Amino acid sequence: MNWYAEHLPLLERARQACAERHCWSPYPEIPGKYPNADQAQADGKQAFEAHLGQDGRSRQFALNQPGQVGWLGEEISPYTQQALGIEYPRCKVDALFDAAEQAIGRWSQASIQERLGALMQVLDVIYKEHLFEITHAVMHTAGQSYNMAYAGSGVNALDRGIEALVHAEQALRSVAPTARWERSFGPSHISLEKTYRLVPRGVAVCFTCASFPTWNAWPSMMASLATGNAVIVKPHPASVLPMAISVRVFRQVLAQAGFDPNLVTLAVDSSAEPLGKILVQHPKTAIVDFIGSVQFGLWVEKNAHPALTFTETAGNNTVVLESADDLDAALRSLATTLCIFSAQMCTSPQNIYIPRQGVRTPQGMVAFQEVGQRLAAAVAALTREPKKAAMILATIQSPQTLALLEQLKQQGQRVGQVLLEPAPYPHPEFPNARTSTPLMLQVSTRERELYAGERFGPVSFVIECNSAQDALAQASADVREFGGLTAFLYSTDENYIDQAEQAYARAGAQLTTNLTGAMPLNFAAAYSDYHVTGLNRAGNASLTNLAFVSSRFCIAPSRRPSRQTA
Amino acid sequence: MNWYAEHLPLLERARQACAERHCWSPYPEIPGKYPNADQAQADGKQAFEAHLGQDGRSRQFALNQPGQVGWLGEEISPYTQQALGIEYPRCKVDALFDAAEQAIGRWSQASIQERLGALMQVLDVIYKEHLFEITHAVMHTAGQSYNMAYAGSGVNALDRGIEALVHAEQALRSVAPTARWERSFGPSHISLEKTYRLVPRGVAVCFTCASFPTWNAWPSMMASLATGNAVIVKPHPASVLPMAISVRVFRQVLAQAGFDPNLVTLAVDSSAEPLGKILVQHPKTAIVDFIGSVQFGLWVEKNAHPALTFTETAGNNTVVLESADDLDAALRSLATTLCIFSAQMCTSPQNIYIPRQGVRTPQGMVAFQEVGQRLAAAVAALTREPKKAAMILATIQSPQTLALLEQLKQQGQRVGQVLLEPAPYPHPEFPNARTSTPLMLQVSTRERELYAGERFGPVSFVIECNSAQDALAQASADVREFGGLTAFLYSTDENYIDQAEQAYARAGAQLTTNLTGAMPLNFAAAYSDYHVTGLNRAGNASLTNLAFVSSRFCIAPSRRPSRQTA
Repeated sequence: MNWYAEHLPLLERARQACAERHCWSPYPEIPGKYPNADQAQADGKQAFEAHLGQDGRSRQFALNQPGQVGWLGEEISPYTQQALGIEYPRCKVDALFDAAEQAIGRWSQASIQERLGALMQVLDVIYKEHLFEITHAVMHTAGQSYNMAYAGSGVNALDRGIEALVHAEQALRSVAPTARWERSFGPSHISLEKTYRLVPRGVAVCFTCASFPTWNAWPSMMASLATGNAVIVKPHPASVLPMAISVRVFRQVLAQAGFDPNLVTLAVDSSAEPLGKILVQHPKTAIVDFIGSVQFGLWVEKNAHPALTFTETAGNNTVVLESADDLDAALRSLATTLCIFSAQMCTSPQNIYIPRQGVRTPQGMVAFQEVGQRLAAAVAALTREPKKAAMILATIQSPQTLALLEQLKQQGQRVGQVLLEPAPYPHPEFPNARTSTPLMLQVSTRERELYAGERFGPVSFVIECNSAQDALAQASADVREFGGLTAFLYSTDENYIDQAEQAYARAGAQLTTNLTGAMPLNFAAAYSDYHVTGLNRAGNASLTNLAFVSSRFCIAPSRRPSRQTA
Repeated sequence: MNWYAEHLPLLERARQACAERHCWSPYPEIPGKYPNADQAQADGKQAFEAHLGQDGRSRQFALNQPGQVGWLGEEISPYTQQALGIEYPRCKVDALFDAAEQAIGRWSQASIQERLGALMQVLDVIYKEHLFEITHAVMHTAGQSYNMAYAGSGVNALDRGIEALVHAEQALRSVAPTARWERSFGPSHISLEKTYRLVPRGVAVCFTCASFPTWNAWPSMMASLATGNAVIVKPHPASVLPMAISVRVFRQVLAQAGFDPNLVTLAVDSSAEPLGKILVQHPKTAIVDFIGSVQFGLWVEKNAHPALTFTETAGNNTVVLESADDLDAALRSLATTLCIFSAQMCTSPQNIYIPRQGVRTPQGMVAFQEVGQRLAAAVAALTREPKKAAMILATIQSPQTLALLEQLKQQGQRVGQVLLEPAPYPHPEFPNARTSTPLMLQVSTRERELYAGERFGPVSFVIECNSAQDALAQASADVREFGGLTAFLYSTDENYIDQAEQAYARAGAQLTTNLTGAMPLNFAAAYSDYHVTGLNRAGNASLTNLAFVSSRFCIAPSRRPSRQTA
């Protein structure tokens, strides 16, 4: 069993992709291209269904973790609005930390190859044996569409995991394991053998979110584990199953490799009794990977000390429409991206800044009002037909999002104009699905309070600005103040584009300019696109750069006189 | 003026040293080997003296910084106990931040080569034109001996600066500047040009300490500047001159290279009106490099958010004496290291743990009491003769240290045994020098409160432990709880050594085993030894690893359709 050797060709290819940042993935991008796809998909569905409670009786998802004191689970499928009926082990927090700490010993002393081999094997087992099971689990917790759950929460998340391993290996190998050091001090010759031990920080706590449970979690876990740490996963109580399946695979593969499975455990909580603050402030917590709300994220960053924190909170993501060669193509791309997974992605655009004078096109200026109406029409066209709507909008993960839409609609009616009213659409396969078409409001920059900061869910704001310069200034200032991951620009003016590139680089959002066509504007390519920049409140977990991995371990040196020296 | 090309051979050689961690330095290790040494040393002394006030009139050290509102300075030479009479610009804090922020623009957009070239030139100018001037400045502020000021605060600090540049370059170059990314989405082919801009965090505040002003400062400044940030230096009010000279060189060279000199400024304060907390919590502070007390260091770590922090506070540094082939040689090395610069180094040993049963030697067990007495005798022998004492002990930087010695002596008399009483020794060149021979106390582990935590200055504790196992357990537990940078072990038992290596790696102190001879036990070699590990309260500034540099900049990506694609 030499997993490192087995997976080395893949790892080497991934290293090249990370260095050159071109398009690559070892995985098929759509379910139909998976090997023996029909059978695999049927098996995955069956495996998912085998987890579910039946006839009102819940089913227990055993993990054999230490300190178990009971069972709990409260997941409800956004597709059926029925409880999944799965219960997970409730374990004493101290028992999980003690077990994790114990498990670190052998793991951290294993070679880099051993650790990387086992972790590549984890990804391989997820891919070969659990991918469609997780796809269904993500659908029925996060509420994503089948295709997105496969791609975004499946293979793309696996890619992000490999990427984290590549960077972890690079950071670990940047430290020489040993050295011989020789120097004279006056007449005396000193020769020392030096050893540089790589020591993990300790126990990492990895939070995962309700709407995208695996995508941040797998790379964070890989980054911590590759560098020798243990990981306690704290899933959002609404989306436990994808991480429970993942944790089980980690535990099985680690045990198979001769390591203590308690290197990876699951700490489930309930919305009534959250564990988050207890885990962050536990004296044994050495690293926190947090994905979730801005509010709790800021609390984590302030209170996790002395633990290291890696965060990805939320995006006040902006669009600037200044001019376009093909305005319809731009609006189609924008409409699609506003709809994908009902804008429940941290990369979904939200605020669209347009000059009052309108948008320049080869056919002349298109008035501000008209641009908003055409964009609204493009969104409406995408969501009118239930089958198409289901593929693109999927479901609404949380009932709170529907409440927010209603509240924002009412506020919008008072201070601005409602361009699109949200409404449930009938899902063709799941008649009870929690759904909504998007809310689109037209406002001016005086209504900043309404749109500044992330409004999680299918809502967007068409914002009237004083000028093209003002649009860019407002948009980038909002990113600086409220955080933002992505930004989008349409302009045919190279000077304006250059200004925008500078402004967004300072504000710290990834800028996509003049993209049209079939690629969703917010598509994030593993091995090529980075995630949050660390320059604004959206967080600092730039999947994956050296900063994401290099402080997860420390160097403990020792030195002694060389044994065979003259 | 292509400074990068000019300094590239040196940088390439330094890269190799950092990778292999062998012994290397481009600089002569003792003053006498400096080119044209006599003249250079005379010139340096003269340059230093030209800074001093005369006849009770102070002299102004002009820096031409923005927002200057006055002058201040309170340095007193530990060698003469007279005021240096130098006044430095007192500037408005906001003006320094505004100017620093403005200066970042062009600097951060310069190429990596341009920045590295200018920074290598800074080090070169310090070495060629200011080294002996700084040597004298360090003597008369920090109180180091001439040779230590030259080596430890001069060339070794320059080496640490180069090391930081090597690692910064490695981190910066790990990000591809651009990429072409191509993929099909259904029938549509997407080709994107991607740009990965490296964006600095912003303004770094670099604290420097009273007793070792340059050694941490130069590498911290280099790490921040190489990654595109600006730096405001906040020197300890007792040791401003070495950093004022440094800051002036940075400003001159940066201006010569066409950059805004306000990239590097000096924020001087007084002990009556400290600026530290204001600087740490300034809204524009993006990075804090802190060297100083544990107490303030912990405050910085807790309160600097959202700024990044790199800290090096203090060492509860431990020695375990279990057995020795040549106990006298071990005690001689230990005695020397206890004396060097009156133990005012963060790497100086303090707590010496010895089994009650004594220390095993080829001649039999040497009783605990006898080991303590022989060590005390070895220290006394080093400090008896004033000329020798002056070379090794140098002076006491702060009057507070003398007060602490007196207080600890009294406490030690009550609860333990005074092995060595501190006393001033007459400095042969400076009759008014503030000096003291070391205090050495013998206690048991019941007196832990007395010795746990750093006691800054020439004090050490010989601690009676229950057994060899207990000695190691106590020592490593004290490091874990109170922090520690260095640790020293004498043992002929390979199993015991192995245990110690594991225990100290977990505790996070660099362990030096069985070293005897002319090298000071706590000698830290640039390009080879790392500094604090990040695993305990002594801090996280491991000069220099990837973690020390890679989060000082962020990656801001942008992407747009490729311009010449099919």
